[in-house]
Amino acid sequence: MARAEFAGWLSQTNDVTATFLAAGGIKGLINLAGGLPDPSIWPVAELAGLARDVVLEDPQATLGYSAIPGLPELRAMIAARFSSDALRLGPENVLITTAGMQGLELVGKVLVDTGDAIAVQSPAYLGALDAWRPRLPVMRPLYLQAQDFDAKPAFSGAKFAYLVPNFSNPTGRLVQLQQRVDLIRASQETGTWLVEDDPYGMLYYDRAPLPSMLELSAQAAPGQPYDGQVVYLGTLSKGLAPGLRLGWVIAAPKMIEALAMAKQGSDMCTNGISQKIAAKAFATSLPERVLPAILDLYRSRRDALCAAMDTHLGHLLDWEKPEGGMFVWARSKDADLDTDQLLKVGLDHGVCVTPSSVFDPEGKDSAAMRINFTLNPPDVLEEGVKRLAKAISASKMANAA
Amino acid sequence: MARAEFAGWLSQTNDVTATFLAAGGIKGLINLAGGLPDPSIWPVAELAGLARDVVLEDPQATLGYSAIPGLPELRAMIAARFSSDALRLGPENVLITTAGMQGLELVGKVLVDTGDAIAVQSPAYLGALDAWRPRLPVMRPLYLQAQDFDAKPAFSGAKFAYLVPNFSNPTGRLVQLQQRVDLIRASQETGTWLVEDDPYGMLYYDRAPLPSMLELSAQAAPGQPYDGQVVYLGTLSKGLAPGLRLGWVIAAPKMIEALAMAKQGSDMCTNGISQKIAAKAFATSLPERVLPAILDLYRSRRDALCAAMDTHLGHLLDWEKPEGGMFVWARSKDADLDTDQLLKVGLDHGVCVTPSSVFDPEGKDSAAMRINFTLNPPDVLEEGVKRLAKAISASKMANAA
Repeated sequence: MARAEFAGWLSQTNDVTATFLAAGGIKGLINLAGGLPDPSIWPVAELAGLARDVVLEDPQATLGYSAIPGLPELRAMIAARFSSDALRLGPENVLITTAGMQGLELVGKVLVDTGDAIAVQSPAYLGALDAWRPRLPVMRPLYLQAQDFDAKPAFSGAKFAYLVPNFSNPTGRLVQLQQRVDLIRASQETGTWLVEDDPYGMLYYDRAPLPSMLELSAQAAPGQPYDGQVVYLGTLSKGLAPGLRLGWVIAAPKMIEALAMAKQGSDMCTNGISQKIAAKAFATSLPERVLPAILDLYRSRRDALCAAMDTHLGHLLDWEKPEGGMFVWARSKDADLDTDQLLKVGLDHGVCVTPSSVFDPEGKDSAAMRINFTLNPPDVLEEGVKRLAKAISASKMANAA
Repeated sequence: MARAEFAGWLSQTNDVTATFLAAGGIKGLINLAGGLPDPSIWPVAELAGLARDVVLEDPQATLGYSAIPGLPELRAMIAARFSSDALRLGPENVLITTAGMQGLELVGKVLVDTGDAIAVQSPAYLGALDAWRPRLPVMRPLYLQAQDFDAKPAFSGAKFAYLVPNFSNPTGRLVQLQQRVDLIRASQETGTWLVEDDPYGMLYYDRAPLPSMLELSAQAAPGQPYDGQVVYLGTLSKGLAPGLRLGWVIAAPKMIEALAMAKQGSDMCTNGISQKIAAKAFATSLPERVLPAILDLYRSRRDALCAAMDTHLGHLLDWEKPEGGMFVWARSKDADLDTDQLLKVGLDHGVCVTPSSVFDPEGKDSAAMRINFTLNPPDVLEEGVKRLAKAISASKMANAA
């Protein structure tokens, strides 16, 4: 008898993330494609000590089941960290998640019925959109940088709008203050939830961080217990270590209750050792202590990548130097370049970047690419850029032939 | 403007699991309702040492992203642990999950489209069924103990059948060998996947474990790389510690690939520290070393609970002494007893059991209850049983009045 078939959404998905995680293993390849941190930023000895200490000190919290929405002390600490004069948060505003990806997945679970519309900042990381694909939403792209951009029609009737205001993946773009305010107003006027995904929010290299949309949205009722439109997603993956799989959602209490109901059926509760490590890390300002070295390292690598691109790629590509994050988004001056093809040609030249098609829900944009600068030191970045220039030339010659 | 509404499935779910996790905090209450382990079984010092060692020894695997389906060494170890002469497993048959609940959720994600049928051993733990509810399946109950039980009509056209052959939650019932073989044959003849959830499989108190349905299903092609009908779910939660959130799926390679695609959008990868702790634990036979003490402890508690029930509840309830697991399933001799009401009356008497309605997808069975024996020592179990007897009498008197 033929076996029961897989669900329909599986035929629409892609394995790009798996491909790039695997590319990490190809010998000699310069990987500019992934979104990986430099392992040197991890405070290994301190985290190892914390991992032992938290188990010894609190076996119940680390080895037992924790409450579904997270350890109460950790929820309270995150509420306190993000509170300000206008933004008043309590533990009831916080859900602990199994890193940022679970936050995305739970948002889709509690808001999307088949065919519901969601509005998505574009281009967008398809790995994130994959978290919602099993719920079969209709995706409305948001091109924030378009001159005639108007959020209201796109938000109207949508369950939520997805935004990465700080150094979006893939474009590295920063959403400026006035546009943040406009987006919040549009969400308030249309009733759509505003999902603010903020994995890169600490990675500002040239200026002080802008206020989050979460904080700006609190201005509607300053100093009142938070009950606003924003669903804020945070993570320790970029600022501490991704293997901890530790993230959080900050939102109105009713939203947190719904997300907790969904989390019960996803993984019941988040890893106890990681939750207690996070609580200890926050209590000893570990994220703040490691951040300056991370910023120095990634700033110098961004500068090295952009300098090498100026030298070797200025005649081939256009890009803007990003003010933060992990990526440069570059577009071919020649619209005929096919970056899907470039991915394969690049592998022959020992370099790997991410083609733009994987960030376009319609798969149409094939003339741009995402280049990561956090994983490799300056000399490797320059060699990677040289290889990329050769690969682009070879790709163009193959096209012309 | 009114806010965008939550997805439809949220109105159908229940908060029983959250209620019982919270009941753990009521002072003086004897909690016979949950399914919690005794914390004394956790090898705290050894796990604390492992937690430190694995971070120091392998920062990349513990603090970085791991491959989506899990650390290769851990997948290989689990494949080796479960292999036998007939059952030949490789890493491609294994997916590491964020504990057993995620295995359940992923199975739903890759198999269920709205309205698809799934066949479910009943009564069943609603917490597990909640993992599938967001996919809007139609549930067909399987009453395995019914005299005229025939799996084939229930399996026919169903995407999968869900079975807990070892000491099912809530009934503690063991599915015997012949019925296991019959169920496998029915799944092979109808093409339905057979999901074998086995959290309690090591908790046999009186006899050697029966072969799993996974192993029995390999008899269809003994010694060949496994490509059978069974999707086996395992976990460290009952035999080592639930806070690790570490589980696994063993299945045909195509199923593992689909589950990994779904896991990418659920939480990307499982906690690195827990994966390495699991690998070290397996390498040093830690689960095997702690098991004898767990069995001795839980066997003596099962015996104490059943002895106290014989003394104090024999005139009120019927039950069978279970051969393993964590629960006794007891039914009122008087069909008028309403165990939903008993839950509330019991709280007034300082005791808490789980009413049968929460294990019935149709919510109709209200004359039985699930009693846990793993969390409390014998004297507390006996006092709990005395309180339960008083609560049942009080509940019956209230009914008669």
